[in-house]
Amino acid sequence: MDERRLKELIEEKKYVTLKKELEELNQVDIAELLEKLDVYTALLIFRMLSKDLAVEVFSHFSVEQQRNIIGLVTDKELKYIVEELFFDDMVDIIEEMPANIVKKILKHAKEEERSLINQFLKYPPESAGSIMTIEYVDLKKHMTVGDALNHIKKTGLDKETVYTCYVTDENRKLEGIISLRKLVISDEEKTIEDIMNKDVIYVHTHDDQETVANIFKKYGFLALPVVDKEDRLTGIITVDDIMDVIEQENTEDFQRMAAMAPSEEKYLDTDILTLAKHRILWLLVLMISATFTGRIIMKYEGVLQTIVVLTAFIPMLMDTGGNSGNQSSTLIIRGLALGEIELKDAGKVLWKEFRISVIVGFMLAVINFFRIYLFDTVGPLVAFTVSITLFLTVIISKGIGSLLPMAAKKLNIDPAIMAGPLITTIVDAISLILYFKIATLILGI
Amino acid sequence: MDERRLKELIEEKKYVTLKKELEELNQVDIAELLEKLDVYTALLIFRMLSKDLAVEVFSHFSVEQQRNIIGLVTDKELKYIVEELFFDDMVDIIEEMPANIVKKILKHAKEEERSLINQFLKYPPESAGSIMTIEYVDLKKHMTVGDALNHIKKTGLDKETVYTCYVTDENRKLEGIISLRKLVISDEEKTIEDIMNKDVIYVHTHDDQETVANIFKKYGFLALPVVDKEDRLTGIITVDDIMDVIEQENTEDFQRMAAMAPSEEKYLDTDILTLAKHRILWLLVLMISATFTGRIIMKYEGVLQTIVVLTAFIPMLMDTGGNSGNQSSTLIIRGLALGEIELKDAGKVLWKEFRISVIVGFMLAVINFFRIYLFDTVGPLVAFTVSITLFLTVIISKGIGSLLPMAAKKLNIDPAIMAGPLITTIVDAISLILYFKIATLILGI
Repeated sequence: MDERRLKELIEEKKYVTLKKELEELNQVDIAELLEKLDVYTALLIFRMLSKDLAVEVFSHFSVEQQRNIIGLVTDKELKYIVEELFFDDMVDIIEEMPANIVKKILKHAKEEERSLINQFLKYPPESAGSIMTIEYVDLKKHMTVGDALNHIKKTGLDKETVYTCYVTDENRKLEGIISLRKLVISDEEKTIEDIMNKDVIYVHTHDDQETVANIFKKYGFLALPVVDKEDRLTGIITVDDIMDVIEQENTEDFQRMAAMAPSEEKYLDTDILTLAKHRILWLLVLMISATFTGRIIMKYEGVLQTIVVLTAFIPMLMDTGGNSGNQSSTLIIRGLALGEIELKDAGKVLWKEFRISVIVGFMLAVINFFRIYLFDTVGPLVAFTVSITLFLTVIISKGIGSLLPMAAKKLNIDPAIMAGPLITTIVDAISLILYFKIATLILGI
Repeated sequence: MDERRLKELIEEKKYVTLKKELEELNQVDIAELLEKLDVYTALLIFRMLSKDLAVEVFSHFSVEQQRNIIGLVTDKELKYIVEELFFDDMVDIIEEMPANIVKKILKHAKEEERSLINQFLKYPPESAGSIMTIEYVDLKKHMTVGDALNHIKKTGLDKETVYTCYVTDENRKLEGIISLRKLVISDEEKTIEDIMNKDVIYVHTHDDQETVANIFKKYGFLALPVVDKEDRLTGIITVDDIMDVIEQENTEDFQRMAAMAPSEEKYLDTDILTLAKHRILWLLVLMISATFTGRIIMKYEGVLQTIVVLTAFIPMLMDTGGNSGNQSSTLIIRGLALGEIELKDAGKVLWKEFRISVIVGFMLAVINFFRIYLFDTVGPLVAFTVSITLFLTVIISKGIGSLLPMAAKKLNIDPAIMAGPLITTIVDAISLILYFKIATLILGI
């Protein structure tokens, strides 16, 4: 079913067919389709869905659609949604809703859930606590495999995942984990203690979500337990939520590296003032920093007046320097983010980049020499001046491009900030000074 | 256990303790630890591990370590490894190994497996076929839930995942899927046909891995079936492999956007000649393109000689233009990659970027005017010339920055190529022409 078919069926009031065809779709697709209708029609169709499916569809609506629907449904309907939503989805929704709607939602939450919601809202943003959920399968080590499977049979439908189960003691301390695969292939008489995995990898509620994502990537887990300061199991994080985290972290890095304040919102959903605000600060900082380059040029005004053609090569030198530095910084920033490069590799990285820059710089300089000597019809001394500057600029910019991200990491600043735009500004100044020094030396001005 | 403890135990020849402590660890960690030993010691420890664990550890070794180990183990050991490895891991290994080792591996594969390996090696790189595996649970629709669970109990250990099971007919056509969760909570007497999900989302062997990753992200699946041209089930892709794909695709985008040829290899494992080769081409192209900028400056030599101070603002104008364009292109490229922006949004995006660029450009221009008028002590007319050029440069560069990635997408070129470095080069030329035109107009040169 596509949008056209949906609207056709609505127009012809063929609701039975519509319900049947809709319920064959994946909940994500149903949510996507309903977003394309006006809110009243959407609510009409939403109400036709079977109750459990409706809740699932609801959790995939956009924030705006959720707000609209909550504003329109009856108290009874809202109560059902609130009760059936997974806890992490509910917390996410509460975080995004205006106060009056939050109040309406909390009214329908059970007392204990309400205090849990408050606790969850207090976890720092981008922490493990802020992305975990509480619907996990909790087993005891004295249970037999048969008991455990029965327990899952009874409670499994309401759990975010049943594929990894958690074994806790009477104080909620995590004692082990066991996969449903292991349960299914094991003898029913065995106890959980016999077959559970005791060497559990877990994270703390306040760990950064990037750390969590790296653990998922390294081990290929489907879920990861989250414990509090007293090592009590407080929640789990599932792999589907981690995929969002990975993309979010990548998007933030892309944005920082392009000199923007990072934002979680989708581009098309963000208003232009917010977008402008996210961009102006860095542009301003970089523009004002570029003053230095201007000052350097003014200082060497005399040189430029004597040999005006030197001005013509300034953009090429600046751009090549910026691009060279950008290549190095991007690789280092990415390597640091993925954990492929660590601070202790700094020496290795610098040595590597130095050798690369000598090769690359030399080739560029040679090609450049012949290109400008032959086609720009400048004297060999000018061509030589430009080329030797180019060679040194490539080496220096690759050095800066690899050093700055690691220095940032060392100082606990996000390395992504040390990307192209900042390095370009620094490299510009250095390459200009070099250029003029070399020109005065070689051309004897 | 850490590296120090491992080496201590080896030195003191406490092998029983060592084996015990090692086997408590996750297989990924064991592989990581063994990488830190010389290959003979690593092999010694590797041989101590229980056979099944050893195979799992083997699949997590680096390519080099795998090569070393294969070169040293006996034929019998190799046979065991080859038989027990997951099929996708085996294909990955074969792709990376030199011919003599591939021959050695294939000698131990069963006849039917050998022809399957050949088939898998033919899938295009980065296609769904190249990342899928064949170890899935295959059910028939007439089976009861009890039958199915028994089937899983018997065969489940050798499957890449048992959490999603696939229902096929006698011609291997995919008829439905069913989750282990559903099986576990369902009545044992029901047939698979009654409870399976018939509206299956799947991909084809030749679909791009990026498409596959986007489906995983959208639906939060744990596994996805892959069918051939005749809609026969040929394999499955699991979420842990998709996480690697996501990071690989992101890394490629980062590299393309920084004007490099993309590479899958880790930075520290890549030799400097390869790294240099990946960088030089784009640097060369961009360096030669910058010739235009030089030509423009030479053409307006006269203007610069009359008012030398104009040269001082060239770097600032170029950098701000580059940075502005970079911001836009990064957001658009990222939006396109995540599917948040589609080609049909082109008009919306351009209109949005235009309004943002007017706001940002105006603010920068005003601040710039006062800054250079007051601090650089140039006349108001020069300050005005620079500022109006800045304003227009920001608007044009944001326009180009948003247009080029979408044009690339339209032409089926990777939008990531249309990033900062290329846009900077184009914006440089345009902003210089603007600058000189405006200068001659306002300053009457």
